[in-house]
Amino acid sequence: MHLFTFVTLAAVAWASKIDETHPHLKPVKFNKAQTVRNINELNPEYWYENAQTYLEQKLQQQNKLNMNKAKNVILFLGDGMSVHTLTAVRSYMGDASKQLAFEKFPYVGLSKTFCVDRQVPDSASTSTAYLSGVKGNYGTIGVNGQVLRFDCELGQDKSLHTESIAKWAQDSGKRTGLVTTARVTHASPAGVYAHTANREWEHDGKIKENLCDPVANVDIARQLVEWEVGSKLNVIMGGGRRNFLSESMVDETGVPGNRTDGRNLIEEWLKLKKAENLKASYVWNKRDMEKLATQDVDYVLGLFSASHCPYHGDLEREGLKDDIPSLSEMTEAAIGLLQQSNEGYFLFVEGAKIDMAHHDTRARRSLEDTEEFNRAVEKALEMTSSEDTLIVVTSDHSHTMTIGGYPSRNADILGLNEDVAEDGLPYTIMSYANGPGYEKTFSAKKGRKDLSDVDFTNPKRKYMAAVPLESETHGADDVAIFAKGPMAHYFSGNYLQTHIPMLMARAAQIGPFAR
Amino acid sequence: MHLFTFVTLAAVAWASKIDETHPHLKPVKFNKAQTVRNINELNPEYWYENAQTYLEQKLQQQNKLNMNKAKNVILFLGDGMSVHTLTAVRSYMGDASKQLAFEKFPYVGLSKTFCVDRQVPDSASTSTAYLSGVKGNYGTIGVNGQVLRFDCELGQDKSLHTESIAKWAQDSGKRTGLVTTARVTHASPAGVYAHTANREWEHDGKIKENLCDPVANVDIARQLVEWEVGSKLNVIMGGGRRNFLSESMVDETGVPGNRTDGRNLIEEWLKLKKAENLKASYVWNKRDMEKLATQDVDYVLGLFSASHCPYHGDLEREGLKDDIPSLSEMTEAAIGLLQQSNEGYFLFVEGAKIDMAHHDTRARRSLEDTEEFNRAVEKALEMTSSEDTLIVVTSDHSHTMTIGGYPSRNADILGLNEDVAEDGLPYTIMSYANGPGYEKTFSAKKGRKDLSDVDFTNPKRKYMAAVPLESETHGADDVAIFAKGPMAHYFSGNYLQTHIPMLMARAAQIGPFAR
Repeated sequence: MHLFTFVTLAAVAWASKIDETHPHLKPVKFNKAQTVRNINELNPEYWYENAQTYLEQKLQQQNKLNMNKAKNVILFLGDGMSVHTLTAVRSYMGDASKQLAFEKFPYVGLSKTFCVDRQVPDSASTSTAYLSGVKGNYGTIGVNGQVLRFDCELGQDKSLHTESIAKWAQDSGKRTGLVTTARVTHASPAGVYAHTANREWEHDGKIKENLCDPVANVDIARQLVEWEVGSKLNVIMGGGRRNFLSESMVDETGVPGNRTDGRNLIEEWLKLKKAENLKASYVWNKRDMEKLATQDVDYVLGLFSASHCPYHGDLEREGLKDDIPSLSEMTEAAIGLLQQSNEGYFLFVEGAKIDMAHHDTRARRSLEDTEEFNRAVEKALEMTSSEDTLIVVTSDHSHTMTIGGYPSRNADILGLNEDVAEDGLPYTIMSYANGPGYEKTFSAKKGRKDLSDVDFTNPKRKYMAAVPLESETHGADDVAIFAKGPMAHYFSGNYLQTHIPMLMARAAQIGPFAR
Repeated sequence: MHLFTFVTLAAVAWASKIDETHPHLKPVKFNKAQTVRNINELNPEYWYENAQTYLEQKLQQQNKLNMNKAKNVILFLGDGMSVHTLTAVRSYMGDASKQLAFEKFPYVGLSKTFCVDRQVPDSASTSTAYLSGVKGNYGTIGVNGQVLRFDCELGQDKSLHTESIAKWAQDSGKRTGLVTTARVTHASPAGVYAHTANREWEHDGKIKENLCDPVANVDIARQLVEWEVGSKLNVIMGGGRRNFLSESMVDETGVPGNRTDGRNLIEEWLKLKKAENLKASYVWNKRDMEKLATQDVDYVLGLFSASHCPYHGDLEREGLKDDIPSLSEMTEAAIGLLQQSNEGYFLFVEGAKIDMAHHDTRARRSLEDTEEFNRAVEKALEMTSSEDTLIVVTSDHSHTMTIGGYPSRNADILGLNEDVAEDGLPYTIMSYANGPGYEKTFSAKKGRKDLSDVDFTNPKRKYMAAVPLESETHGADDVAIFAKGPMAHYFSGNYLQTHIPMLMARAAQIGPFAR
């Protein structure tokens, strides 16, 4: 019936190749035994009702947008908490259908994380973006794109420093605070108060290592104690005592300090506060932190570890639960302190170790810390009201972790896929593009490693990676933003990460976007 | 100064291990030569102004939500278009700061893609979700979770079939259509009109292969021609002529049919339309498709390839541009036809080959097809108005592709990272967790392969993968949803993929959510 009219030779030649390609599973024998995760899912009405419930929320929201002024703003930052991490933690917490506390927030956006000089950013350049609204270069904090990493001359030029939302909040009389499971001088929290050409300049010794002048270039710990924004912070909670103490001193657990200038910045912080007649307290363990609630204190320096705080799962495993507070416990204490002001507050809370575990390709630890991060958000939701508190949850950048294969709903997300690969060997559901897990993946002599008998319940277990790197790298993909409270509707869209502080500031009517 | 009070032995023991871990780049020599991508990025005002522009859009939106009734609804589906794919295509199109047409849409959401029996779904189960609002099992289409793949008995039970938004649109008098670069009987478009226990039953021969009765189980091609929703479609455009023709016949390019029942469904389709006095036309090449605009036609069956349509980049490379329309050209023709009705329309447009290229670990082809998908959305934006047309852009599921390393802003996203790995060998910026690219990654005898001299401009070049699979697998992470037009604000949130058709139906006031 068909005439070969008009068709070119190219089309006939191409057609003869016939692209029937499609990826399917290997033939599966039909087996009526289905493992059902939730019997309701077999009923179409279940899905209809789910959509109906969601739609009703949307109808309510459209009828009454929350146009209140945000008295309080809390920014939760899951460091390295990629979209893939969010999906994985749901399965880890019980099932793919699980909803995290912040996944129920009414508005969602996607944030573009590239920095001025790289397509995949680090936590320093991104902290400038989501706290100051300006993109900088890789490795720099609180300085604009004119300052390259390691440039101590330009780094100390105040005209190139950016202003963080913490400054805007302070200028308008609000309390401010930061909570992190990293050192309080580490890249992400430093974005709240510091300005430096190199994220590693957390103490003076590190500045000298890069042949810069540690007097002209003030290290991050000193900036936290001495400089305007840092010194006004009401709450500073996290790890990193070593950067406040000199090499000749030891901290409460016997760990020596890092500083080479002989200073004890913890004592200096207390003295400065006393000199101004401010009610200030230094705490270094969980018990003392918990006592703060009953004390009359306006400024707290809480340093709960010599360096970074432990992975959340290790608090239990290493018997540290009574000594070192968890992220959610610090968050609770921080909000308790900040809430005492009538002017409102800005709080930055970082789940820092989601990222660090990914860098180690230790997927279990990363999910444990993500679960705890979610708990910290839940705590904030309990303690605040959407009427006056804007809560924004986001991440600074992604990682290269993915969930692959077609695991059944019952499969352990941290285990092996039910299918094997072409070589007859199993492969993990979660894996990384690169990182130290390479050594668990491939042997130059024997080829791909057999993971059949591996114990994936070990939190230190490294996951598969295709490229040998000491530290797994970040990923480039956009990260999610979840917003709830006053003006949360600003946050739906796909935009630059630099919009985040501007939109928060506008909602709180502070800073350059106050209007 | 510090007293060792209250601290447990566990805390001291843990502290002695000191976690100073952090992933950094290898020491970088400071070099003032910066490659600036956009000189404006060095100016903080540039970022402020960007945020200001965005905020003004949000203020406008909040002052006037688009509460119109959606006369028309277009669902754009980038098959396998993960968030990582969106980030990659920006760089491919010029720079990480590039914005796709749909990334400018005012509302963004995240869609959870798991299916009833698996954490990582396929394109069949997800098509049921985003078109019918019900999650089904892996490999099934248009049936609820009670039907397992390959179950021919339950698959033909009409009480277990789901209703797609195309039916709701038809029931309310709207025109309907589908456009795809896959076979029109392939999993995603089949979700518009078909009900089957196995996505592979595109023609009768495939049903026999699974020992099912091809009379009781009607194949997907026949459902498109004979069944209620398929037969009412005004526009059917894509590939897949073979599934409409029998083995004894050849198509216009000389390719034999697949069917074993001796039928010619293309002729049958035309006869059925004539019998109802409908103005119908079958077209099989681009020139004939373009002539439709000047003809009086209400129904079009456009089958432009024996099987799937070519990868977009191959239209040019293989000299097929005059014979086979691109996705954006089909989209333009489809909207032109559907627009002729005063009752409005529902159109489904799939960029199918983004997914297929990922399965092959051929990253370049995937990005080429994503760019063309964006062009199709641009075309729809040109031809429609936000006043009466809701456009939703999303994906069915993710893939395991990631962008790793810390490439500079100038690096070619499809090339090698500027750094080398621990073994001194380079690694690609884009890579996959698994797939056929494994053969380009590792050799059991020689270890990791040296990619230094590889030509990454070859569109067939397979990218790195850690696990040998014939076909790279999907990923589990949520996919993005972008919405513009009437009731687009429904779409901001993190929700089940099944909400999508319900929200579209509500906006158009059709189907069970019409109210």
